[in-house]
Amino acid sequence: MTVLINNKDLNFMLYQLFNAEELTQYSRYNEHDKNTFNSILETSYKIASEYFAPHNAKADHHEPTFDGQKVTTIPEVKEAWKHFSQAGLLCATQSYENGGMQLPVLINMASNALFMSANPASVAYPFLTSAAANVIDAFASDENKQTFLPHMLSGRFAGTMALTEPDVGSSLGDLKTRAIPQPDGTYLIKGQKMFISGGDQDITENIIHLVLARIQNAPQGVKGISLFIVPKFKTNQDGSIAETNDVQLAGLLHKMGYRGTTSTVLSFGENDQCQGFLIGEAGSGLKYMFKMMNEARVGVGLGAAMIGYRGYLESLEYAKNRPQGRLPSEKDPNSKPVNIIQHSDVKRMLLAQKAYVEGALALCLFAARLIDEHQAGSNQDSEILLDLITPIVKSFPSAYGPKANDLAIQVLGGAGYTREYPVEQCYRDNRLNPIHEGTFGIQSLDLLGRKLWQHNGKGLALLMQRFQKTLDETTVPEAKELAQIFSQHLATAQKTTKILGNAIFEAKVDQALANAALYLDMMGKVVISWLWLEMLNKAYLNFEQSQHQDDQNFLAGKLHAARYFIRWELPEIEHQAKLLTEFDNTCFNMQADYF
Amino acid sequence: MTVLINNKDLNFMLYQLFNAEELTQYSRYNEHDKNTFNSILETSYKIASEYFAPHNAKADHHEPTFDGQKVTTIPEVKEAWKHFSQAGLLCATQSYENGGMQLPVLINMASNALFMSANPASVAYPFLTSAAANVIDAFASDENKQTFLPHMLSGRFAGTMALTEPDVGSSLGDLKTRAIPQPDGTYLIKGQKMFISGGDQDITENIIHLVLARIQNAPQGVKGISLFIVPKFKTNQDGSIAETNDVQLAGLLHKMGYRGTTSTVLSFGENDQCQGFLIGEAGSGLKYMFKMMNEARVGVGLGAAMIGYRGYLESLEYAKNRPQGRLPSEKDPNSKPVNIIQHSDVKRMLLAQKAYVEGALALCLFAARLIDEHQAGSNQDSEILLDLITPIVKSFPSAYGPKANDLAIQVLGGAGYTREYPVEQCYRDNRLNPIHEGTFGIQSLDLLGRKLWQHNGKGLALLMQRFQKTLDETTVPEAKELAQIFSQHLATAQKTTKILGNAIFEAKVDQALANAALYLDMMGKVVISWLWLEMLNKAYLNFEQSQHQDDQNFLAGKLHAARYFIRWELPEIEHQAKLLTEFDNTCFNMQADYF
Repeated sequence: MTVLINNKDLNFMLYQLFNAEELTQYSRYNEHDKNTFNSILETSYKIASEYFAPHNAKADHHEPTFDGQKVTTIPEVKEAWKHFSQAGLLCATQSYENGGMQLPVLINMASNALFMSANPASVAYPFLTSAAANVIDAFASDENKQTFLPHMLSGRFAGTMALTEPDVGSSLGDLKTRAIPQPDGTYLIKGQKMFISGGDQDITENIIHLVLARIQNAPQGVKGISLFIVPKFKTNQDGSIAETNDVQLAGLLHKMGYRGTTSTVLSFGENDQCQGFLIGEAGSGLKYMFKMMNEARVGVGLGAAMIGYRGYLESLEYAKNRPQGRLPSEKDPNSKPVNIIQHSDVKRMLLAQKAYVEGALALCLFAARLIDEHQAGSNQDSEILLDLITPIVKSFPSAYGPKANDLAIQVLGGAGYTREYPVEQCYRDNRLNPIHEGTFGIQSLDLLGRKLWQHNGKGLALLMQRFQKTLDETTVPEAKELAQIFSQHLATAQKTTKILGNAIFEAKVDQALANAALYLDMMGKVVISWLWLEMLNKAYLNFEQSQHQDDQNFLAGKLHAARYFIRWELPEIEHQAKLLTEFDNTCFNMQADYF
Repeated sequence: MTVLINNKDLNFMLYQLFNAEELTQYSRYNEHDKNTFNSILETSYKIASEYFAPHNAKADHHEPTFDGQKVTTIPEVKEAWKHFSQAGLLCATQSYENGGMQLPVLINMASNALFMSANPASVAYPFLTSAAANVIDAFASDENKQTFLPHMLSGRFAGTMALTEPDVGSSLGDLKTRAIPQPDGTYLIKGQKMFISGGDQDITENIIHLVLARIQNAPQGVKGISLFIVPKFKTNQDGSIAETNDVQLAGLLHKMGYRGTTSTVLSFGENDQCQGFLIGEAGSGLKYMFKMMNEARVGVGLGAAMIGYRGYLESLEYAKNRPQGRLPSEKDPNSKPVNIIQHSDVKRMLLAQKAYVEGALALCLFAARLIDEHQAGSNQDSEILLDLITPIVKSFPSAYGPKANDLAIQVLGGAGYTREYPVEQCYRDNRLNPIHEGTFGIQSLDLLGRKLWQHNGKGLALLMQRFQKTLDETTVPEAKELAQIFSQHLATAQKTTKILGNAIFEAKVDQALANAALYLDMMGKVVISWLWLEMLNKAYLNFEQSQHQDDQNFLAGKLHAARYFIRWELPEIEHQAKLLTEFDNTCFNMQADYF
């Protein structure tokens, strides 16, 4: 059976690092305890390994096809969907009233992590459905909720988010899909959408698209955008399916990875028969969609972390069992070859993977805990902090997860480059993550151009408080040594932020944002270093006195990974800070004609 | 027609940067001049774009198949082979006596670059054949030469190098294939080889494998290894084909990229009928093979550079023509979107690609010029310098070419992730290059553990002389500013080398080599920075006074790319040097049980 995660580490993160049991103090979660959490995670592990992992490679080799009439996916995808929805996982975080389990987002995130490791492409269908259901639950009219929501949560209908258009890409304000008001209060939808994941499939009876469109005569830009429910098939109030709703599949896109998830070009209203239902208020579409998008962004981060994690586990297993070569000091050709995990450079490649993927997973779980604190605990500070770090939660795993997969291939060498081993698929799958739900560049503008300065900079102040708390609690000498390095580079990051902020407010915004991608990478390294320090403190607290060898090994592993990240990677921000604070204009001044 | 290279830049590199015309002073090349060079390059460009580029994607989609009896490749591969060999390119560098053109390696490398850009997988067959022919020409007996060489050079037979075995990988000293001496002076070959590129195909009448094997009772380790000619079909002295030589295709490997090139598992002598011919002396196999391997390593560097280059050109074209978004300071949603090449972060991604791929190509051409100086000019210093930098020539392009392809995908965004665009194939193809012909880790041990200290460190001294010459010749203020940054980091690299050298000679070899991969990356950045400075000097010399706008743009492009590499990338070596000189033991001390 495929190993999906280091369970000891997941337990450590949930119960020691993020104190999941504390969440049961919120009234929303007070019927839960550690037993119910663990029982849901066990169910998830079982379904993920029995129904998702086994066809991960097969769905990649046999990607969905479209014969002009109908999309066909391999039958295992539908079977997996069935087990996922029957276990109640589509509505795990929904209220009891909606038939859900009121599961904390933190535990749900851990459950999602298992599926992302097992089969990121097949689980995209249920994850998109849950996210779309959340938007409908939060903002749609009661009538629309009644029509669509129960069938999405039960697994009869799937959901998608339909934002991007062929000529628009990241620039949502320019989208052209139109919504023409009809006498009955519905809208006629007309336009084309592209890169819509799960936009067509043969898994569910119906597909509920959440479509961004511009109501006739709405203003240009983001303020003119509204959000609509657009089902593939018209749906009666009792949930039964009627005729087609004039949503045509124009074609499937053929991706390098994530092949098991259809990526579609959809035409809405080619025959002027496409009916849409406005969600909430006209002109607020982007605001509602961002609820789904922010959730999706954390989900992208989690996927990137877990595809990275899966590659790490595969390469670790290989390195432990593959004899080859000798240490440089061993000159006797008759000596026995060592397993490659003995080679320092292989240890480096494994340690870097461990530092990236465990750090990235911790970051996503941290975001989940903030969601719980905000949604179930009404903690506004947690919402503000979550808002600030969302670009980092999306981007750090998306940048370093693929790096981990690159290293996993390298550990396996020639074998890793073949489709006979699973790591090359991880590498291809993970390359999507720095692109969708806002590219790395878009996230960097969001962080440096917007998020930092909201609420008078309160998000950053809250983050700094968290850092300070961890520093104050660091007592073990091995951790203190790393805390000192962290403090020093943190000061650099703070100074850099201040200088860039001043420039933005002095209206040198193009120059100040020119190198924003460096800033996003820098802040990612700072936040992940903090999480490593926090993990190290908690690991000492829980395992230092343990007599069990596996506890001592676990602690030593955390120490070395923390050391690796803080000693090897974090100091790279000094040079980034230099370029940022000098407003280095090398890229800014480059001209198209010079290339 | 696919653009394969920036021809203005290639001309600049050949004639201004590396003064190709000067090579005609060597007697071997004295029938050549700039016209013959250019005419061969024009022919290469024509064949590469007409017969190689058009099926690059098709050969990837329809990879070679094996039905248990026979391998089938798409017919375009054989057609391309035919045009390549008929143009005399298989033996371009061979002597007139052997039917060749006595073309300088520098010009041949430029010709090869065009094919690597057009279709790296299909051109692997002729490149491997040329390399194998060179080994046979240099070391085989006259009788074997007569039997095989003319047919390899004419394109009737192909060649391969068969080193790796299933349980051996990088550790060649442990290989197990046996060679049993026969009364007639031939050998019976018995064993299995893996990852043999071009090991079977339906393109040529015969395949000549160069096989590393251990003669019965030979000592363990590398000293017991000999090299053999092992044809797929027995070959009569007149070149006609006889019965099969008991070389069985055990199977094809299915790679992530480079799919057009077969990667094979071969069984030699399953029926004790496999005849091999010893090349040169017994026990010297690795020495001979290294002639081919060093050539192959430069070839890998070139391939990595050119796959990177191809992605750069594709993403540049896309960025120039794709309107999307506005600059941060533009707040009017009714304003026209700009082409994405106007965005600073897109410029960064293009500039980084330019800096990597033009730098990497310059490095490979530099290596080619050293080969000419050594082989045609009998310059021993050039040989020593080439020997030193070969790990860098193999590894810098292999590390930074894939980075360039990663950025090319990012520039295209969602489109770049689909197989509807060519950059995802570049990304998959290029991932092979840090693995084959010696992984990055193996190259780093070769450089730091061996190459630096050969000939009493003369290679490094020669390299430093080249650096100093460039620094002395830097006069333009914009270049002097970069020269100063370069000097400062060069001092760091020199100091680091000295400290590591002392540790190795004090017998702390395992510790000193533990972080060798960092050292290889550091030296790659130093060498490429030097080449950028040298390019910049030559660009000022040739274009500063020009009245042509395209010359001024070319110069400005070189200036910005040099600035990018020297200001943005080179300073990263300071942190690498710190870890190296502190003998940071984070990775070294990590233990298998801690993971």
